[in-house]
Amino acid sequence: MTRIGYRSTGRPTLNEVARLAAVSPITASRALRGVATVAPELVEKVRAAAQSLGYVANPAARALASAFSQTVVVLVPSLSNQLFIETLEAIQDVLRVRGLDVVIGNYHYSPEEEEKLLRNHLVNRPRGILLTGFDHTPAARQMLETSGVPCVHMMELDARRGAYCVGFSQQQAGAEAARHLLGRGRRRLTYMAAQLDPRVLQRGAGFRQVLEEAGVFDPQLQVMTREASSIALGGELFARLLDEHPDVDGVFFCNDDLAQGAALEALRLGITIPERVSLVGFNDLPGSAHMVPRLTSIRTPRQAVGQRAAQLLLGLLDGITQESQVDLGFELVVRQSS
Amino acid sequence: MTRIGYRSTGRPTLNEVARLAAVSPITASRALRGVATVAPELVEKVRAAAQSLGYVANPAARALASAFSQTVVVLVPSLSNQLFIETLEAIQDVLRVRGLDVVIGNYHYSPEEEEKLLRNHLVNRPRGILLTGFDHTPAARQMLETSGVPCVHMMELDARRGAYCVGFSQQQAGAEAARHLLGRGRRRLTYMAAQLDPRVLQRGAGFRQVLEEAGVFDPQLQVMTREASSIALGGELFARLLDEHPDVDGVFFCNDDLAQGAALEALRLGITIPERVSLVGFNDLPGSAHMVPRLTSIRTPRQAVGQRAAQLLLGLLDGITQESQVDLGFELVVRQSS
Repeated sequence: MTRIGYRSTGRPTLNEVARLAAVSPITASRALRGVATVAPELVEKVRAAAQSLGYVANPAARALASAFSQTVVVLVPSLSNQLFIETLEAIQDVLRVRGLDVVIGNYHYSPEEEEKLLRNHLVNRPRGILLTGFDHTPAARQMLETSGVPCVHMMELDARRGAYCVGFSQQQAGAEAARHLLGRGRRRLTYMAAQLDPRVLQRGAGFRQVLEEAGVFDPQLQVMTREASSIALGGELFARLLDEHPDVDGVFFCNDDLAQGAALEALRLGITIPERVSLVGFNDLPGSAHMVPRLTSIRTPRQAVGQRAAQLLLGLLDGITQESQVDLGFELVVRQSS
Repeated sequence: MTRIGYRSTGRPTLNEVARLAAVSPITASRALRGVATVAPELVEKVRAAAQSLGYVANPAARALASAFSQTVVVLVPSLSNQLFIETLEAIQDVLRVRGLDVVIGNYHYSPEEEEKLLRNHLVNRPRGILLTGFDHTPAARQMLETSGVPCVHMMELDARRGAYCVGFSQQQAGAEAARHLLGRGRRRLTYMAAQLDPRVLQRGAGFRQVLEEAGVFDPQLQVMTREASSIALGGELFARLLDEHPDVDGVFFCNDDLAQGAALEALRLGITIPERVSLVGFNDLPGSAHMVPRLTSIRTPRQAVGQRAAQLLLGLLDGITQESQVDLGFELVVRQSS
């Protein structure tokens, strides 16, 4: 069957789509390709027209012409930590209206695994890359530089020239936790840290510095393990800590799951919170506000980090000059546990 | 600079890669394209050779030739529920060694949003699709059928001919929870359900049927809300339920976050668990084993579902005939709360 205005193959043309959507063919093309300057409403209109006509663009031909795919690669160190899920959702929300697919890679906190993922994904020439932090292997750094693929770093800030990043000062967050616990009259303080990725260590450095300045830092009390952070681990480490150092009166946790586990273990052990020990968590994960007692925590802007990082990447793709460092800050949320 | 064995552009050829990896050019090509019959070890070897030579395949040309991308689209109803994260990780692990990228779409439990995602993604002609459950709009069903893209459904089973699926019987899981609570001598039983997606309703149907057979079903006690499941909601609904129906002696929750919230609220209210009320959760999420008291829950095979669904999809891509229904079962884990 041949229809007027259709290709000899019987497939509808871009002109048909443009006519139905009441836009110019140029706009229809730009809308389907996800060009920045087309309003999201128009993109939806053109897509709806394309769908109702059964118009299917040939993405392979399009990619061959542009030598780029329509993919943005996002690498995160973990998916089992609730932390990165909100970030990823926000990224997808921003990039989807531009017609960009998000490919998520999880490197399980291993820079070597991150390097491997980068190598595999760069072969497909993504439109952009979003990375977590700055802890890359030298080979990964080199690949990123030579690839020329626009890249934005998330979660940490870094003063290095030319590195685009969206995050907050992990060190200042640790310092804030220490100041809060000191303000509560606590003196036997410890940082309970798992995973020991660079951001966990930066928070620890900020915490330690404030304790040292106050003359109360005791290296004997610090708990550091490479194990993955979890509720189970938090309970276990907390019980051991209080057994070995019964005079500990304040704990800052590198992640809220540890703090939740500690609070539950304290209930089981009859250790009164905050009377005997004050607890301060990090990230303000779901559940912390409902723990017994409700947990004090440092709320991190995970969602905003994803949103701004994706917007920064789009700005780079469009050649719009932007500030390279976006500091979104953090917030100490004081509840019953401290 | 021109090097022997290199293209006139100075870029290395596939033949160079094959020689370095000590395989035939055909195998090198198949390895880089992610063809099934090449062993994962060989794929890694060829990729390493390609990388060390700086060989970059032209994926656009490849895609034009095959008329298919190297992408598998996975649609899940939620990313904020820990439930689907393990599933997605397992899927990525299986597909990555085949050189397939996973694109994740989140439709926030809205079949209309799922339809929209399908429409957008099918334009790019993915290699395969993994869907959650069978609750699709008629338009989505039609797109799936006419697209010819291989599709596997996860989490639910369905006897419909030709629908490939990997999951377990949600209804039997609900029935198991009811039998367990009845076995504990509980008679004033309720199902506390949020979200009300099809799988939540199937679990409720199984729960109800067993209570009806035992002659103890009381519709007055059932708690059903379309709100999203969360720890906060669990605490709130549980407090209200016990206030209105102080004689309730057993609750089955559609998801563990509700059960965790209820257990924490019970602590605050001085309601003894399980003496006064038995609690049974669903999914056995992280934390449930460490709650006060430790929660009884039905453990679901999220990771295995992802793994088997991805393997089933690969089997379809390779034209290997496979069983269309994979029932992975579930497990009641009895702890202190019941």
